[in-house]
Amino acid sequence: MFSSLNEYLTLSLITNHRKMYTLQKAQQIISSNIKRLPGESVDLKDGLNRIVFSDITAIVPQPPFDESMRDGYVIPESDEHDKATKRFEIVGEIPAGKTYADRLHPGTACRIMTGGCVPRGGVHVVPFEKCAEQNGEMVVAGHLLESARYIRKKGSEIALGDRVVQSGVALQPMHLALLSSCGVRSVDVSTRPSFGFLCTGSELRSLSSELEKGQKYSSNSVLLEGLSTSFGACPEDLGVIEDNKSDLLDFFLKAKGRGLDFLVTTGGVGPGKYDLVRDAFVEAGGQVVFTALDMRPGKSVLFGILEGTLFFGLPGPSFAVQTLFNVLVGPAILAMQGGKGRWPQKVKGCMQHQITTKRSDVLRLKDGVLTSDRGSCSVRVAARCEISNCYILLQSGEICYPKGALVDVYLLAG
Amino acid sequence: MFSSLNEYLTLSLITNHRKMYTLQKAQQIISSNIKRLPGESVDLKDGLNRIVFSDITAIVPQPPFDESMRDGYVIPESDEHDKATKRFEIVGEIPAGKTYADRLHPGTACRIMTGGCVPRGGVHVVPFEKCAEQNGEMVVAGHLLESARYIRKKGSEIALGDRVVQSGVALQPMHLALLSSCGVRSVDVSTRPSFGFLCTGSELRSLSSELEKGQKYSSNSVLLEGLSTSFGACPEDLGVIEDNKSDLLDFFLKAKGRGLDFLVTTGGVGPGKYDLVRDAFVEAGGQVVFTALDMRPGKSVLFGILEGTLFFGLPGPSFAVQTLFNVLVGPAILAMQGGKGRWPQKVKGCMQHQITTKRSDVLRLKDGVLTSDRGSCSVRVAARCEISNCYILLQSGEICYPKGALVDVYLLAG
Repeated sequence: MFSSLNEYLTLSLITNHRKMYTLQKAQQIISSNIKRLPGESVDLKDGLNRIVFSDITAIVPQPPFDESMRDGYVIPESDEHDKATKRFEIVGEIPAGKTYADRLHPGTACRIMTGGCVPRGGVHVVPFEKCAEQNGEMVVAGHLLESARYIRKKGSEIALGDRVVQSGVALQPMHLALLSSCGVRSVDVSTRPSFGFLCTGSELRSLSSELEKGQKYSSNSVLLEGLSTSFGACPEDLGVIEDNKSDLLDFFLKAKGRGLDFLVTTGGVGPGKYDLVRDAFVEAGGQVVFTALDMRPGKSVLFGILEGTLFFGLPGPSFAVQTLFNVLVGPAILAMQGGKGRWPQKVKGCMQHQITTKRSDVLRLKDGVLTSDRGSCSVRVAARCEISNCYILLQSGEICYPKGALVDVYLLAG
Repeated sequence: MFSSLNEYLTLSLITNHRKMYTLQKAQQIISSNIKRLPGESVDLKDGLNRIVFSDITAIVPQPPFDESMRDGYVIPESDEHDKATKRFEIVGEIPAGKTYADRLHPGTACRIMTGGCVPRGGVHVVPFEKCAEQNGEMVVAGHLLESARYIRKKGSEIALGDRVVQSGVALQPMHLALLSSCGVRSVDVSTRPSFGFLCTGSELRSLSSELEKGQKYSSNSVLLEGLSTSFGACPEDLGVIEDNKSDLLDFFLKAKGRGLDFLVTTGGVGPGKYDLVRDAFVEAGGQVVFTALDMRPGKSVLFGILEGTLFFGLPGPSFAVQTLFNVLVGPAILAMQGGKGRWPQKVKGCMQHQITTKRSDVLRLKDGVLTSDRGSCSVRVAARCEISNCYILLQSGEICYPKGALVDVYLLAG
């Protein structure tokens, strides 16, 4: 208990002197504290959604041999300017996957299928529909030997050693297909950051317990597990603990030796008497970088370093956890994997309705829903319990955004 | 080999009589053949990205009790119109997670923390900053007892039995948090469709082999594995086989007894001599629904039913596999899980540059990149080897789309 109101006021005064950063400054300082993780080699088929560690180059060119682009006949060099009807003796057939062992001599032709391997001496494919077959010969009007030769040359799409996928790209199914064609069996991807999380709050119980009056289920555990997974981290649930200084200290001391890449707590970062995360973190040897943002949510959010582990002390309410995760923690997880592109990505949206804010002293991030409407990016405030796909940035100083106004919007990753 | 060119021409004639559908008609007919899969119960934390089978309702209301919205003092009913200074004897403290056993009697107050449980008789929270504490009493100016009572009533956000998440929704981290708060431990989600795939082509080798001349690595295996996973199916790689009628027939006969939800092949659906998928499928008892689309890609694509299994015979080239998967197969996988919303989702995009097409006889789907540009949805054709995020629909009959034109765009799911 407070011995007097003065104790509360003193606490408030201390917190008013907290290190308060703008969102941009916070993003910069977090970014400057990130060390990129090493790479690891995984089987191509396990590479889906992983982030490429270093540029991947082709081991097999595309196409891997001169290939026919049509079903037809492959013929050797002939005089295209001679308009007379020409005849070629059919000496073989080349379905896909097979080769013609011999060289193609003048006056001879092979039937060839799309994707078939053009034999030595073959320079021109005449599609079936442009010629005829008579008594073992292919007959074609000379003027039909147009410039199109219907042969895709070896390496014309991707040469041996060409870069196929750039470092920092999150591998999509089509990348895997491309890499597979190019003979790439395994890929170097960034290791996944380890991500430990703890929910603090004396009122919190895990879902397996029964609630007593005054208690709540801890909803941030599943939230953090889901969000960290979406950003590519390996989550580890470190449990739920009460607002108790010695338990918190114990937790930080244990976490310190774990060598985690990320440690995140929820709750206990406000100015209240039971907000003990900061003290325990500092006592365990943590270095505080900032304790507040000039933004809502973000009035109370701690960022610091605990022996090489990046620590985020997020507030308790789930909506604030989600927002701060998406704009601070998630982008840091991506950056640690060398992810390409800046997250959160900022775009402009056109307000679907007017927004008025009561206070305009700080930047406000409002859950939004961005949709495409006849060629324009239209944005509205998300309804209660509706899942947002963006945040609308309501700048400090502005209290009214009329319908149709262009506003800054942060897209949610994934 | 063809015994004569006539054989080839006969084949071509047959294929000209193929069942050709528009994309819209194809989507409708696939949709009408889909039976929704049953649900299964999974732990909440395993529910990420799964599709909800039936509406989920709250087991615990939100908030679960009358809770304080501020750090302050909770007091019983008092006369707000009396502007005189009031005093309340402080009889206890209620941190989050604890309760005050007694009823709050007139003239008494308890300290209470944000999220603390309002005791019986408590109707009003006075924030710390609006009052003072003197000699064991809370002192407040009567006029400060404003209308705001800083109490969130039990069930005011979500009442017991309220629907929290609707059937058909793919669960996101924030849904999990919401459900967790509402005491939901496990969720009924749609079972994942089983999805078998086979790549056909005598030129194809798996990545573990060495290539001989004329051969290629099968790139569609990883592509189909990745795409089907992204849409929520359980993929099973059924291998690579040659263009050989008896092997194909054998494959379909075996697949028939498996009770798969989806069966997909690539290659072997063109008009060529070695395109044997259709024949083998029919001989195995498959019913052909359509064999071509009035669209590029899609000139050759087979959809049919094999004893309750939906069968898609896709063409060989990876770009065509990806496109047809995204507009036909993927949406069917989602629909079988009861996924909400129509895929592919169609929006309008504004052309970043002029497109001219050579032929305009059919609808063309072109790989595109959709971005947001100062409030408008801007779209351009994807560069070679660039990963697209949409398809631009170039309508038949149109041959030129000028810069700035509004075009239809299919968004890629996931």
